[in-house]
Amino acid sequence: MTITSSPSWAALGTHQKALAATHLRELFAREPNRVESLSLSFGGMFYDFSKQRVTAETLRLLTELARVAGVQERAERMFSGERINVSEDRSVLHVALRRSAGPFPSSQFDVMPDVIKTRLRMAEFAERLRAGKCIGHKGMPIRDVVNIGIGGSDLGPKMMGQALRSISHPALGVHYISNLDGAQLAPLLQTLDPRTTLFVIVSKTFTTQETMINANTARNWLRANLGDDLVSENHFAAVSSRPERAVEFGVSGDLVFPIWDWVGGRYSLWSAVGLALMIAIGPHAFDEMLRGAERMDEHFRTAPLERNLPVVMALIGIWNTNFLGASTNSVLPYNESLKYFPSFLQQLEMESNGKSVSIGGEAMDCATCPIVWGELGNNGQHAFFQLLHQGGRIVPCDFIAAARSDFPLPEHQEALLSNCFAQSAALAFGKNKDEVRADLENESMSAQEIADLLPHRVFAGNQPSSTLLMSSLNPGALGSLVALYEHKVFVQGAIWGINSFDQWGVELGKAVANRILPAIRDQELAKLLDASTQGLLSFARKHL
Amino acid sequence: MTITSSPSWAALGTHQKALAATHLRELFAREPNRVESLSLSFGGMFYDFSKQRVTAETLRLLTELARVAGVQERAERMFSGERINVSEDRSVLHVALRRSAGPFPSSQFDVMPDVIKTRLRMAEFAERLRAGKCIGHKGMPIRDVVNIGIGGSDLGPKMMGQALRSISHPALGVHYISNLDGAQLAPLLQTLDPRTTLFVIVSKTFTTQETMINANTARNWLRANLGDDLVSENHFAAVSSRPERAVEFGVSGDLVFPIWDWVGGRYSLWSAVGLALMIAIGPHAFDEMLRGAERMDEHFRTAPLERNLPVVMALIGIWNTNFLGASTNSVLPYNESLKYFPSFLQQLEMESNGKSVSIGGEAMDCATCPIVWGELGNNGQHAFFQLLHQGGRIVPCDFIAAARSDFPLPEHQEALLSNCFAQSAALAFGKNKDEVRADLENESMSAQEIADLLPHRVFAGNQPSSTLLMSSLNPGALGSLVALYEHKVFVQGAIWGINSFDQWGVELGKAVANRILPAIRDQELAKLLDASTQGLLSFARKHL
Repeated sequence: MTITSSPSWAALGTHQKALAATHLRELFAREPNRVESLSLSFGGMFYDFSKQRVTAETLRLLTELARVAGVQERAERMFSGERINVSEDRSVLHVALRRSAGPFPSSQFDVMPDVIKTRLRMAEFAERLRAGKCIGHKGMPIRDVVNIGIGGSDLGPKMMGQALRSISHPALGVHYISNLDGAQLAPLLQTLDPRTTLFVIVSKTFTTQETMINANTARNWLRANLGDDLVSENHFAAVSSRPERAVEFGVSGDLVFPIWDWVGGRYSLWSAVGLALMIAIGPHAFDEMLRGAERMDEHFRTAPLERNLPVVMALIGIWNTNFLGASTNSVLPYNESLKYFPSFLQQLEMESNGKSVSIGGEAMDCATCPIVWGELGNNGQHAFFQLLHQGGRIVPCDFIAAARSDFPLPEHQEALLSNCFAQSAALAFGKNKDEVRADLENESMSAQEIADLLPHRVFAGNQPSSTLLMSSLNPGALGSLVALYEHKVFVQGAIWGINSFDQWGVELGKAVANRILPAIRDQELAKLLDASTQGLLSFARKHL
Repeated sequence: MTITSSPSWAALGTHQKALAATHLRELFAREPNRVESLSLSFGGMFYDFSKQRVTAETLRLLTELARVAGVQERAERMFSGERINVSEDRSVLHVALRRSAGPFPSSQFDVMPDVIKTRLRMAEFAERLRAGKCIGHKGMPIRDVVNIGIGGSDLGPKMMGQALRSISHPALGVHYISNLDGAQLAPLLQTLDPRTTLFVIVSKTFTTQETMINANTARNWLRANLGDDLVSENHFAAVSSRPERAVEFGVSGDLVFPIWDWVGGRYSLWSAVGLALMIAIGPHAFDEMLRGAERMDEHFRTAPLERNLPVVMALIGIWNTNFLGASTNSVLPYNESLKYFPSFLQQLEMESNGKSVSIGGEAMDCATCPIVWGELGNNGQHAFFQLLHQGGRIVPCDFIAAARSDFPLPEHQEALLSNCFAQSAALAFGKNKDEVRADLENESMSAQEIADLLPHRVFAGNQPSSTLLMSSLNPGALGSLVALYEHKVFVQGAIWGINSFDQWGVELGKAVANRILPAIRDQELAKLLDASTQGLLSFARKHL
């Protein structure tokens, strides 16, 4: 049975029809305890979903859906190390990466010795580098670290490094290079001193095209500048599940850190993939981040469904996507240091659940992952919020903010928060004709002017949003935040019945690129390609 | 009559139904001249829309729709200076900002003397600053320029500055500050020398909350560091339509540059709002950028609808939004230097056309602006492209690339382009069951393994995209590119019959923020607010 044919799904459909005509204004007017019943607190976090188009009854029905879908059972299968990533025949154990102790998942299959050993090796190296004792060219200390990786080997540490820049090592530069475009790496190299630069090459297979081309360019740059004096071991570290390939590239074996097949790229921030991050913030803060994630794991594993933060967040998404028909979800951090969080979530959500086939291989009969998009909220207000307010589209929004600023300046933080809270209120409650008319009359306009302007100044409201408030951007809270979204994705995948842990959709493009690359120079090969690609190649060839 | 009740609209609906079952593979197989008939060249640009789900007949019907909607007539009304922004009673004359000569729009209402005078004043100042002759504290030359502005006073110059960083002045730092969050300005100030820093305050009204709070902090920082020696005139310039307010703030009158009510923020890159950009790239390159935009203006004004680049691009968007039901449009630059282009377009499109009321005040009976979102394409491949390939949602994509790299490195550019072309081909043509099965059989899998994996490795294809290829990121091409999208937005607004030039939707949030701000400290005031806001304030208050 698919979830869409369950009585719970049908009950939600019926409930939606009954609730459809009720505006958020009315729900607030009608329910004095709305915020108490539609908000959750966890650690230093407050999650207010009272401005979603739901009632306590909606939540009850959604929770029932989660129960019917066997969300908790599926979570237990993950935590117990079962190979729930069936299409790749793998366990899903990123939660191991933030555990304090083992055995885990079981004494028969215990990954913790490897995890802890790697964590300690990372910490030893990071401490040494932070203390200026990591040696580059001719005894000079390493001052710049360049992480070369793409997708999951880039977005997580880069996002978190930005979020925690207020506690980053003040004298170390940590940079992230992902794009094949030389316009990312080349200008960075111009600012670096090859004698004091370390590259961390992050690729599970150590064959990722983007990463290997960037790594080769880095090695060529070192060679060109340091010549025969180049000692590769002083300038490279690597994170890979194929250590022998890293060594062959020229990385010293003791600076190759492992990653395992039971952790997917987009869930790997907590592993050695976070090495550059650990170098920036130090092993202690890195550990606090792991502890924050571990607290969320325990909460997810033990809290009742209706008070379970990742479960509730996931259910709100299901409601918006499958019952209100939203096709996107906007993520709006009111915090400059979270500027990469929307991009990080794009991968986490869309690569995990952007699928239209069930885990058993059946075509889905309902929508799955929405398009996740967003920007810093305050900037967005002056850019695309027009559409959120008056565009006539349902766009559920996640507002995210920290109460305390990580770079306090007088006046700024209170004004920032007032904008964050104001936007979600304006989206929810809008401004109706009578209110607009009253305002325009106060501006002493003529009746004709009012009639002309009025429709343009009405705000329909009823735009659903949640607000996730953190006390501050500390490592623990951020660890909890990321784990929260990871489990949200898990719950949605479990309800839809899809495998959130494979990503077959990335394969075809790679194969086609391999066919196109030689055809850029070889017109005979180009003739074997489709007409559009031929046209594009022909234009490109003229200008390359 | 609304456009949706026109016979053209109905004809498109019928045509869509007839075409719906036809896959892009079939269209390519059937039409050998598809690329010739479904691509356009202009200047150093090649626009290939053959991988859109259209035929020559679709284009004919869409062109007819543009004719019925009076797109060209409406464009002429803009070019002739009519007050087509009726809800604000203003002309729409950003095209004047890139014209080489006047009179324009007419000899009776000629804005060109002001435009050219301002352009010359900007150039004089920019040249002086670039030559190290712009004096900061005690005769030291200005070395860093900080643009303080938000929305249209930020996104345009910042995006273009990034796009043209390969030709930027090597010894000048040009920075952009928009966010109220002190976490944007505070860390920047730590890296700057107050003695050699100039702030450019950009705000049409000179009352924008974000901009004024950031400007005040900048002034306080200068005062704290330079004390009584601070000579404001050496450290501030401004762009505003209220010069007296800028002078009152402390900007020297000869460094206040005007902006006019006939140019909207999101169309103002070409005006004095581009001052920081001109400082970075120099007046000559800035002028080349204007010339590129002017060439696109002339093309838009004179080319027949069916060969008119902005018109065709707009019509493809109408087709995808209104006939194929797409709710988003993804913008995917394969060029690191275009990394802010998606954010820029978000404002341009969503603030212009994110409306659900017609210019005459009627509720729209069709969808308008889609949600514009995107990321650097190569990074996106390793993040959210999974959903584009297998998510089961229609997501029209704009691929954008330059054939020649602005920071050439061996190997990188060809690999980058091969990925760009490969992704659009993979999205369009997919990989069907037979092809997947053949591949899996080559991997010598068992029948059972093949049966299990097959559905997960099928790519439905038929995902529509266009590719816009430029010869290189030169100022002229970039000027044309931005003007192209501006006019695309214009054409879509004209077809939907909405006013693309007002933005009433930004007003309510501002008003609500003004009510919330004092309530952060005053619990009595908080009690007047909605329950959700009260809850958020109460949490924030504990941690601020």
